[in-house]
Amino acid sequence: MSNAKVLPLLQPQVEPCCPPLTERPLTAEEAERTAMMFKALGDPVRLRLFSAVASHEGGEACVCDISDVGVSQPTVSHHLKKLKEAGLLSSERRGTWVYYRVEPAVLAAMGQLLTKAAAA
Amino acid sequence: MSNAKVLPLLQPQVEPCCPPLTERPLTAEEAERTAMMFKALGDPVRLRLFSAVASHEGGEACVCDISDVGVSQPTVSHHLKKLKEAGLLSSERRGTWVYYRVEPAVLAAMGQLLTKAAAA
Repeated sequence: MSNAKVLPLLQPQVEPCCPPLTERPLTAEEAERTAMMFKALGDPVRLRLFSAVASHEGGEACVCDISDVGVSQPTVSHHLKKLKEAGLLSSERRGTWVYYRVEPAVLAAMGQLLTKAAAA
Repeated sequence: MSNAKVLPLLQPQVEPCCPPLTERPLTAEEAERTAMMFKALGDPVRLRLFSAVASHEGGEACVCDISDVGVSQPTVSHHLKKLKEAGLLSSERRGTWVYYRVEPAVLAAMGQLLTKAAAA
């Protein structure tokens, strides 16, 4: 591409969901969107499944890779779908299985929300 | 104190609640503790109240300072107590009012959990 050299190197794009929590009170709309993500991680089984996907080789996993959380495969599928609906995982079907992967930008935005709040 | 000079300058202590989510799947016990904190922020009203406290002058607020979230004072009190039970706020009674303050170490630990996961 002809303009490749003039494009600056960008940091990975982080979803500008909300300001740091110490900056100002969230609006109702911001809180609605952000609470949905926190809520998705607010269930112990879902949080374990999320960490199972996030820590799996290659940063992705299918239901077939997860067997040690002590819940049935349909339950695993259900929770992974919930995490996807909350925007924390993306998915791709390959043959029989749906592979889930963490959404780094969304996670980074949530992390910054808290980390900046803590540092202020 | 006589040994002040040999003590290294320490970063603020961050609760070692869990490893970054990309490192390994959380254990059931770790997930139980951590999910409780995420769940506390997983309600829109509670999240707005939390940001109201975190962004208030001096980093603390009492129920008397919060009037614009559109819920009654007893409801505000109820949610602030829930945030305290989850370890996200500490409180101190002064005269008539209980003042709430964010717990920076807990927030930082939650933030790192997500930020490191996102960076990996």
